[in-house]
Amino acid sequence: MITDPKNVENIAQIVTREILNALVEEAVQTATPQGQQCKVECVDNLCVKTCFDELGHVISAGAERISSTLGSLPDDLTKASYIDHTMLKPEATAAQITQLCKEAREYHFASVCVNPTQVKLCAELLRGSDVKVGCTIGFPLGANTPEVKAFETRQAVADGAGEVDMVINIGALKDRNLNLVARDILAVVQAAHEGGILLKVIIEAALLTDEEKQIACLLAKEAGADYVKTSTGFSIGGASVEDVALMRRTVGPLVGVKAAGGIRTAEDFENMIKAGATRIGASAGVRIIKGDDKAAQPAAKADGPKNY
Amino acid sequence: MITDPKNVENIAQIVTREILNALVEEAVQTATPQGQQCKVECVDNLCVKTCFDELGHVISAGAERISSTLGSLPDDLTKASYIDHTMLKPEATAAQITQLCKEAREYHFASVCVNPTQVKLCAELLRGSDVKVGCTIGFPLGANTPEVKAFETRQAVADGAGEVDMVINIGALKDRNLNLVARDILAVVQAAHEGGILLKVIIEAALLTDEEKQIACLLAKEAGADYVKTSTGFSIGGASVEDVALMRRTVGPLVGVKAAGGIRTAEDFENMIKAGATRIGASAGVRIIKGDDKAAQPAAKADGPKNY
Repeated sequence: MITDPKNVENIAQIVTREILNALVEEAVQTATPQGQQCKVECVDNLCVKTCFDELGHVISAGAERISSTLGSLPDDLTKASYIDHTMLKPEATAAQITQLCKEAREYHFASVCVNPTQVKLCAELLRGSDVKVGCTIGFPLGANTPEVKAFETRQAVADGAGEVDMVINIGALKDRNLNLVARDILAVVQAAHEGGILLKVIIEAALLTDEEKQIACLLAKEAGADYVKTSTGFSIGGASVEDVALMRRTVGPLVGVKAAGGIRTAEDFENMIKAGATRIGASAGVRIIKGDDKAAQPAAKADGPKNY
Repeated sequence: MITDPKNVENIAQIVTREILNALVEEAVQTATPQGQQCKVECVDNLCVKTCFDELGHVISAGAERISSTLGSLPDDLTKASYIDHTMLKPEATAAQITQLCKEAREYHFASVCVNPTQVKLCAELLRGSDVKVGCTIGFPLGANTPEVKAFETRQAVADGAGEVDMVINIGALKDRNLNLVARDILAVVQAAHEGGILLKVIIEAALLTDEEKQIACLLAKEAGADYVKTSTGFSIGGASVEDVALMRRTVGPLVGVKAAGGIRTAEDFENMIKAGATRIGASAGVRIIKGDDKAAQPAAKADGPKNY
């Protein structure tokens, strides 16, 4: 629905972002000709420390354009386009997934966010709509190998996913085995971008120190992730305003920040957007849009035993 | 440590089982010659309804031999060989995994049970010991595709795993899409058995009705799984005595039953064995062996935020 006025702001952001990315890519190639190594230890001549410094003038204009909209609340018509309508409980039935897709079409959510086994069904149900299919990868523990995560991503692409949400290797981050953390993200970035789809990197903030959150965000940004994301919704805690703000400060204005886990009301939604989130993952999307906060708590509980 | 008397009973069981399996395989080939279809809808001419009926006389002798030991408690020396020493929290560090392997060597646990990213390290640390490396597959939601689960299994084999614990497609079971549930299990059975390793099938009993538990167990048995297992430890409930007994009744004496999730004390251990479990998954293995029940509760809590 490109002509729908409620999508214009979003489209402007996406187009700006894509032009910037193209410019950045071209400029990087000029700044670091093929075969020439980056002076610091970046993997792909795209590090924030050096490579991007040389592109400051290219980026700053776009950053200004994008950051001017960061933190400001969308109007009621645009709200839904910020939400990934989510159902990740392992016992989800085809009927429940069908209902999820029906609601996503009706409210024009950004995407549905589902487990890999549901991608084909969602792609079928959402064909011809403006709603993308988002697929979890290495979810929710992230303790799979890079090869498995990349394989799962390629299959998600083939099955019709338009976005993937991967979980980092949390143990490797705790070990400061940053090479493995980066290699893991990069494997999925490559698989996703080769397939022409977006990648979000879940850092599972509740299990990390602030330093670890920042390292994870920087590695995700350096690897080329499109978004960093707070939480799986399956750990000891979900999104917090403080974490969203920290992540936004860390990645700057050019990478998306998705808040997910425990977002159940219109108020939660607004707080996350004000803190710098550009996407919201929630199973309570319909209630958030309707602003039916009083009904949110019991209904959200009925979604499943946990914070799905 | 084949000469160790504490392993003799176990070895006797394993050898009996292997001979039986060889006999069953031969008998199946005779009963259902290549190219001939089973009269009911089994996938591989190994269904319980028909194919196995024709092998009744072969199986009954071995079943009697094995079932005579079912439900009887092991002596203190044999106890550890029933336990999969488990650490599945996503933030587990190399130091914690190293400690897990050290304890497993010291106490002669059956295996360590870890996430895929830890298999290589464990295989290195346990080389030359009597402890196997167990690896989770499609864990803990099971909502991955059969192809991804099979790929993950093959990589686990290559990395040094001796057993894998896979989670079934729970949503497909709820949908009564039994073809998908069976295909999913079979993909992992094939990958595991081609690699010469054991397969346990986690049914996540807490999310299932009794009928669903029985269907899952029968499908696992029919697909050739070596064990059925109650729980991941990441859902709303862990192993219960009732579920273990139901699963044992359903699979008969020739398939293993692993109880896992929330088993923290020597008393829990004994109750599960009496109900028919032949393997116990626990992060509290050392405490169970030491019988230090009073210390178990707070210490288990320190393992992680959930029921890992």
